[in-house]
Amino acid sequence: MIDPWSSAILNYEKLIEEFGIKPFHDLLGDLENPHILMSRGVIFGHRDYGRIVKAMREKNNFAVVTGMMPSGKMHIGHKMVVDQLIWYQEKGAEIYIPIADMESYSARGIDFPEAKRIAIDEYISNYIALGLDPDNENLHIYLQSENKTVGDLAYKLAKKVNLNEMKAIYGFSGSTNIAHLYTPLIQVADILHPQLEELGGPKPTVVPVGPDQDPHIRLTRDIAERFGSQFNFISPSSTYHRFITGLTGGKMSSSKPKTAIFLSDSPEIAEKKLKSAKTGGRESLSQQEEMGGVPEDCVVYEMLLYHLLQSDVKLKETYQQCREGSVMCGECKAKAAEMIKDFFKDLEMKREKAKDKAKSILN
Amino acid sequence: MIDPWSSAILNYEKLIEEFGIKPFHDLLGDLENPHILMSRGVIFGHRDYGRIVKAMREKNNFAVVTGMMPSGKMHIGHKMVVDQLIWYQEKGAEIYIPIADMESYSARGIDFPEAKRIAIDEYISNYIALGLDPDNENLHIYLQSENKTVGDLAYKLAKKVNLNEMKAIYGFSGSTNIAHLYTPLIQVADILHPQLEELGGPKPTVVPVGPDQDPHIRLTRDIAERFGSQFNFISPSSTYHRFITGLTGGKMSSSKPKTAIFLSDSPEIAEKKLKSAKTGGRESLSQQEEMGGVPEDCVVYEMLLYHLLQSDVKLKETYQQCREGSVMCGECKAKAAEMIKDFFKDLEMKREKAKDKAKSILN
Repeated sequence: MIDPWSSAILNYEKLIEEFGIKPFHDLLGDLENPHILMSRGVIFGHRDYGRIVKAMREKNNFAVVTGMMPSGKMHIGHKMVVDQLIWYQEKGAEIYIPIADMESYSARGIDFPEAKRIAIDEYISNYIALGLDPDNENLHIYLQSENKTVGDLAYKLAKKVNLNEMKAIYGFSGSTNIAHLYTPLIQVADILHPQLEELGGPKPTVVPVGPDQDPHIRLTRDIAERFGSQFNFISPSSTYHRFITGLTGGKMSSSKPKTAIFLSDSPEIAEKKLKSAKTGGRESLSQQEEMGGVPEDCVVYEMLLYHLLQSDVKLKETYQQCREGSVMCGECKAKAAEMIKDFFKDLEMKREKAKDKAKSILN
Repeated sequence: MIDPWSSAILNYEKLIEEFGIKPFHDLLGDLENPHILMSRGVIFGHRDYGRIVKAMREKNNFAVVTGMMPSGKMHIGHKMVVDQLIWYQEKGAEIYIPIADMESYSARGIDFPEAKRIAIDEYISNYIALGLDPDNENLHIYLQSENKTVGDLAYKLAKKVNLNEMKAIYGFSGSTNIAHLYTPLIQVADILHPQLEELGGPKPTVVPVGPDQDPHIRLTRDIAERFGSQFNFISPSSTYHRFITGLTGGKMSSSKPKTAIFLSDSPEIAEKKLKSAKTGGRESLSQQEEMGGVPEDCVVYEMLLYHLLQSDVKLKETYQQCREGSVMCGECKAKAAEMIKDFFKDLEMKREKAKDKAKSILN
């Protein structure tokens, strides 16, 4: 298996060892048409994913929950979750997408009407443009602030969580505002509410997250058990994906524009940004011809692996050409830049077409 | 003015001095037909009640908010608030009565359907039986858990309250559950939501409470100011009433049945309980004839003053006969017992008639 994160893998393995997250590759053989993010190891870990595998195999009801925080711009790293949703939608999952407008209010000071606007223009439009089927009746997109079922459940669940726990998990202090302090309970309810009787009752549910979200997953699983006798919740499953590297080598972040390719960037800007990205090239061409490049340290290669190259054969070829020193960064970048430009052209067109639909979903 | 609390008055005066609560009697002259609880000094203090006086005089819109906690049985002390509501209803107030089912869930573990049942059978039925007009369109009775306007406002307000404040006011600790911790914000929203644009906009609002609730009133007034520019809230006014003494001399409490006359007691039980109440009598009849009784220390006299004797002339007569030693406890008790029996007979009948109406209000 190709693994582009040799430098970072130790940390991910530590996560697996210390916190009981299981390696995802052990389950790969049980999956029909695993998503490339799975087969390529971007999704590296899970909790109780066996339940989801079983539900898919036996065509049983199951749910996927993953929120969007309407507080800024979507970058290409966010596409990962949408890709997974599309895959799950094809597998027949009930898809729940809470729009975390309560969180964006309490943590970022974004007012509710503004959050709704961002959710429509920036998020839902892109989700549809990326391929999520908005007409599938199994798709449930909602604003947290408008979902009374979720709000009611959050309050009920909050009775069996105490302040010490919240402080330990989220680092809250005396100056934390109470809305912010309460928000994680809303998120717990987002994850568990598809199992309420009125929504079809207990069912396996998976939450795709980054590893930084694991404490929240653990709390949710704990709470599910505490209310076991009342709601018969099945403890939710989770998957963990690696983060995408930013253009400058660190983390890709919407709040640091130089690190990110935004989905709303024009095709030309996206192309230009990719061309400026840090690669795994050597100090000189001759050195690189001799020693080969380091795709494991290359943002461009990562972009191909996560997003741009669907063919495993071609990806492997690219990897080998780099390692052998037979294709240099310039040529490789030019190809990738062409691909991202085409991708963004297509996305731009589809996003324009998706806007009315996106609006209608929340109205 | 007759004052039956000489023994306790010091504490109430301390409240007034230390916390900026103003004496209510200073406003009495400005009120048209003040309620006997006002004229007799049971309602002893206020904050910003001048706004309410002005609204009543000028026939402007104003609101009264007072919740009920559906967690047990109503005792005769609770009647005090209902009496005030009836008076305010006649004065043209918008009456808001939140049923604190969220609090009874988080603090007492009472489930929502059970809280609703208690609210209907035990509270709303009695409110109507005591004289609240259920058909007045200015009456708004609601379950907190079902009022999305209040829930949404609570969350918005929670953003400008931090954990330190909540701890200082309510004594929350690490083991406090998060639902319980969040509940005061719901109560703040109960008080402020009548001022939202959708409910007619900013208006003077009064909250009749016991002095133990003042920290909560102060928080609500602070929060109203913090959101001044956003909602233009008028800081809510409050009144403070003395507690009714329990049958055994301490506090009347639903959780200590021996101290309380419950509104659901049969007329005979009520009569019997009143006859067993602690009085201000002396150790012997001859001593009492000589020195007179102490109405200030007498539960029966207090019952007359709070509830049973509407006529100030007769009340004064009773007081003087006791002080002079011309009427002994036996005779006085017999009269009061007869009155409470009649009152409870009437109440029982009216409550039966009110039950369907009470149900329809919440359905």
